[in-house]
Amino acid sequence: MKNTFLLIIAVLISSMVSAQFAGMMRGQKPEPLPEGFKPASTNTFLARYPAVNAETRQAMFKVVAPTAQDVKLDLAGKKYDMTKDTSGVWTCTSDPQVVGFHYYAIIIDGVAVMDRNTEAFFGSNWESSGIEIPEGPEGDYYRFNNDIPHGQIRSIYYWSEINGIERHINVYIPAEYEQEPDKKYPVLYLVHGWGEDENGWSNQGHMANIMDGLIAAGKAVPMIVVMPSGDIKTNSDVREASGDVTEIYAKNLVPYIDKTFRTYTDREHRAMAGLSRGGFQTTRTVFGNMDMFAWMGTFSGFFVRGNDVVNAFDGVFKDAGAFNKKMNLFFISTGTEERNPKEHVETLKAHGITNIVFHESQGTAHEWLTWRRALNEFAPLIFK
Amino acid sequence: MKNTFLLIIAVLISSMVSAQFAGMMRGQKPEPLPEGFKPASTNTFLARYPAVNAETRQAMFKVVAPTAQDVKLDLAGKKYDMTKDTSGVWTCTSDPQVVGFHYYAIIIDGVAVMDRNTEAFFGSNWESSGIEIPEGPEGDYYRFNNDIPHGQIRSIYYWSEINGIERHINVYIPAEYEQEPDKKYPVLYLVHGWGEDENGWSNQGHMANIMDGLIAAGKAVPMIVVMPSGDIKTNSDVREASGDVTEIYAKNLVPYIDKTFRTYTDREHRAMAGLSRGGFQTTRTVFGNMDMFAWMGTFSGFFVRGNDVVNAFDGVFKDAGAFNKKMNLFFISTGTEERNPKEHVETLKAHGITNIVFHESQGTAHEWLTWRRALNEFAPLIFK
Repeated sequence: MKNTFLLIIAVLISSMVSAQFAGMMRGQKPEPLPEGFKPASTNTFLARYPAVNAETRQAMFKVVAPTAQDVKLDLAGKKYDMTKDTSGVWTCTSDPQVVGFHYYAIIIDGVAVMDRNTEAFFGSNWESSGIEIPEGPEGDYYRFNNDIPHGQIRSIYYWSEINGIERHINVYIPAEYEQEPDKKYPVLYLVHGWGEDENGWSNQGHMANIMDGLIAAGKAVPMIVVMPSGDIKTNSDVREASGDVTEIYAKNLVPYIDKTFRTYTDREHRAMAGLSRGGFQTTRTVFGNMDMFAWMGTFSGFFVRGNDVVNAFDGVFKDAGAFNKKMNLFFISTGTEERNPKEHVETLKAHGITNIVFHESQGTAHEWLTWRRALNEFAPLIFK
Repeated sequence: MKNTFLLIIAVLISSMVSAQFAGMMRGQKPEPLPEGFKPASTNTFLARYPAVNAETRQAMFKVVAPTAQDVKLDLAGKKYDMTKDTSGVWTCTSDPQVVGFHYYAIIIDGVAVMDRNTEAFFGSNWESSGIEIPEGPEGDYYRFNNDIPHGQIRSIYYWSEINGIERHINVYIPAEYEQEPDKKYPVLYLVHGWGEDENGWSNQGHMANIMDGLIAAGKAVPMIVVMPSGDIKTNSDVREASGDVTEIYAKNLVPYIDKTFRTYTDREHRAMAGLSRGGFQTTRTVFGNMDMFAWMGTFSGFFVRGNDVVNAFDGVFKDAGAFNKKMNLFFISTGTEERNPKEHVETLKAHGITNIVFHESQGTAHEWLTWRRALNEFAPLIFK
């Protein structure tokens, strides 16, 4: 009897779901949005809100919270009071935003929580909501393009002796890799920033679309891109980190990659880059292992302790000629609306460092559009 | 001046982060947990709570919400009142849980939100928190094992003509795949249930660990496992679904996989299985394309409309001899604590369907431990 009842429930649910799809397939219109607004590409399946307006670059948010006393939106450093309708639905519309990816939170009675209608992104060392603000033609380089071949992002765990646990990495493999079984590839190690994780470059950064586009256009050479975690993750049984992440990169990760994929293993075919703290990790890893890397990039991440850049980093720049001979490219980038290392770059150039490329992302701050642009500028310059 | 100030801030942050790691590296103890409790494996980086007790199978939760009036935990169908200390931190300890994966929510002043200290999982068609309850030796088959070779999960977008957009899939590739460049592989299509997505089997299901173990032990043949979305996702510009997901599987996905990977393309080397609604989709896809699949499984998903199972599914079972000749295996599984299709199985056997394998997961309901066990039982039986 109980089984029959549950069976009926199951069939009903199944029918309802089918009906929903059937309705959609018949072209029934979903909940209408205000003119000019569309669901954000970062929304989960079927969610209509948040909605974004590509022209005004505003976003509209909706939260169902009939019993809450106070609901706010926290987006790009500004808190917005949301207003409640009679059915307990809170809404608000943001100011115009910089295009690209932004973290946000909903504040319910003082507690910053996530919007369950958008995908979750790891940021500031906890799970966060994020929204993609669309834009016109510029964004083409980081959007999916069906007219070109696509690489694959592989989710892999490798064992770190130093860390004493398995560590998760994402590895971008260029589209041609499996069609060229005798070919070897150069490798770019690409690190996220503070508070994010090894999924940042693929999820928030759209790096696969960027690399697919550059390679298909012949602007970048086909390469493998390895995205590790920049944090010393630990076994949940102990949660005590051990080791130094730059050591883990150089001694555990690089050998694993060279063993697992068809790579060139000389320094001329190995590059490293990172954003923000990942840029700092790049300087530490590369300057500590100059025999391993010949190309490097720091995206909003050229952090110099003190102001004496020529003598910083244990004096790696002191002998400019030696540095120039070793390092084929030192790419340094920044957004114009954030801390700008331009003076350091000029000092280094005046000192005789010749292989610096300096890139400024116009009108952007310490945010993902800055870093998508940086990767798009950096990747064409390496392994050539 | 502004730049110098920001630089100092950046260096300070960088130093603080370094100090944190340095402290951990010197073996400084993190926040102590009550005896027997450890951080859940589903926690984000560095989060101490939720904490789980492997012996009592209880979980402890902690939420910082000083200005909230009422905070509850919602776990496995039960709501727990959380209690607040003087610093505004709310805690509670759950009843003993079934081991494996469970969704949960924190209810803040009536609004069900996520716990930002645990990884996010897509369930019930929105983002959710989840917790893994550890267990003793049984769980070995779904945990990472460093002593065996590991496959890779590849994140790929393929174009669906029927759906009119790119569709995301995860594809498990066995460890030996790249060491055997001339070998072809059979393919299992493995579908999630209602409200989850194409990441469910790898994130909630730990399928890579299960397959790695079965293949390394010689219990299952090396195979490719394709995990598609069981929902008709749509372009965010339109959000109007088109097409039938079983058609998308048969006409767009299977040809894409056979074009992209080294697969055997005959029906003897193609299987499909799914959990819950994914089991229903499996019956629809396989029974509608008997020339394409020779092996199938429904995990908690053998949904029969009406009670006349012999005549259900457009009469596919009517001619038992014909069905037996076509289908090498019809695997049906269930948890003992959920709707049980045992009677239907017995009716079909009595009717002359000989190739059914029926599996019951003892003591589990409509939940992930049931499905991890089902995959572990099913995969060894196919392609042999």
